Amino acid sequence: MQVFPPALENLIEQLSQLPGIGKKTATRLALNILRKPPALARNLSSALADLHNSIQLCSCCFSFSEDDPCSICADQRRDGSTVCVVEGSGDLLAIEKTAVFRGHYHVLHGVLSPLDGVGPGEIKIRELLSRVRSGAVKEVIIATSSTVPGEATASYLIDILSREPVTLTRLACGIPMGMDIKYADKYTLAKALEARSQAH
Amino acid sequence: MQVFPPALENLIEQLSQLPGIGKKTATRLALNILRKPPALARNLSSALADLHNSIQLCSCCFSFSEDDPCSICADQRRDGSTVCVVEGSGDLLAIEKTAVFRGHYHVLHGVLSPLDGVGPGEIKIRELLSRVRSGAVKEVIIATSSTVPGEATASYLIDILSREPVTLTRLACGIPMGMDIKYADKYTLAKALEARSQAH
Ligand SMILES: [Zn+2]
Ligand SMILES: [Zn+2]
Repeated sequence: MQVFPPALENLIEQLSQLPGIGKKTATRLALNILRKPPALARNLSSALADLHNSIQLCSCCFSFSEDDPCSICADQRRDGSTVCVVEGSGDLLAIEKTAVFRGHYHVLHGVLSPLDGVGPGEIKIRELLSRVRSGAVKEVIIATSSTVPGEATASYLIDILSREPVTLTRLACGIPMGMDIKYADKYTLAKALEARSQAH
Repeated sequence: MQVFPPALENLIEQLSQLPGIGKKTATRLALNILRKPPALARNLSSALADLHNSIQLCSCCFSFSEDDPCSICADQRRDGSTVCVVEGSGDLLAIEKTAVFRGHYHVLHGVLSPLDGVGPGEIKIRELLSRVRSGAVKEVIIATSSTVPGEATASYLIDILSREPVTLTRLACGIPMGMDIKYADKYTLAKALEARSQAH
C-alpha cells in the first residue's frame, strides 16, 4: 500500500538505511523534514553530497580528515610517542574534549567481533603494529570500551603488542565522577574496589 | 574546538537542525554515514534534493501529494461524504494501514497550542470549515490525538462545526487491543468504563 507520494517514500527508504533508524523513525524524520522550509532539506542534501568527496582517512592515525596527515598528527606541539588506540572517531572526539591528552591517536574503525565476521584483518590492527614497529612509539594507551567486544579487542592488542618494546597502558575503570555509589552497577563497583588507590 | 573535518562538522550541523535530533545523535548518525559506502550518502542526498520539488499539498484534503487532487481524493471508490480530520500525515498513514476507513481525510498540519503561538489560523481549520460548507460532507470524524492539545483542538472543532449540518463523531477511547487491564492507566480505564458497551 502506497499512501505517501513516491518522493516521500523514497526519502523514508533512504533514511531507514541508516544504522539505528527503523521504518517508524525514518517516517517521522521524513515528515518533519517535509514540514520544514525547503532550505533544510537542501542544506542537508548538499552536506551529504560533499561528505565523501572531501574526507579521507589520515594515513598515520586513520581518523577522518580532509588533509593527510590530519591536523592532530601534523601538530608539532603534540607528542607522537604516545598513541591512544580507540574504536572509532566518536571516542577520539570524547577524549579530545577532555583536553588532557596531548598525544596521537590510532583509530581501529571497529572492534573484534568474530560472530559478526570482524577479525583482526577487518580493523586497523596491522597498521597499528607497523606503526609501533616503526620505532617512534613509546607508549600505547588502549582505550577501547568496557564492553565485551571492546575487552576482547583490548586483550588481543595486549597479546600482540606485549612482544614489542612499548609500554602498554589502559584507561582506569571505576565509579563515574559525580555518581552516587549506590547507583553504580556491581561490576563497576567491584572494579573500583580492586583498583582502589591511597587516599592522600 | 574543531576535531572533525569541516565537511563532517557541516553534516553534523545540518542533521542537528532536524526536530528531535540533538548534537550527540547527529554526530553518531554522521559518523555512521561516513563509515558506510558513499552510495548511501549519495542516495540520501538526492532523495532530500527531490523532496520539496515533487511534493505539494492536495488542495482538497491538504495531505502531501505529487498530484492534486491526491490519490485518495481522486479515488472514485472512496466516500467523499465522510471526512476524517487528523493532525498530521503520520496519523493518516496509521488509519490507512487499518484498511477499514474508505472515506476522505482532512489534514490539519498541527494542533491548537496557544502557548506555542498556534491558533486556528495556523492550521487548516478554515479550510475544513469551507469544505464542510461546500455541502458535500455528511460526517466529520474528529481523529485528533488524546493529548491535551489534541483534545483542545477537538473541542474547538466541535464548537465551530456543531453549527453546520453535519454529523460529528470521534474515535472510541478505551483499552488498547491485547493490553492487560492492570497495565492500563487510570484515565484510559475510566474512559473505557464510561464508554462500556453491551456484551453480545
Ligand atoms: Zn592522523
Ligand atoms: Zn486529497
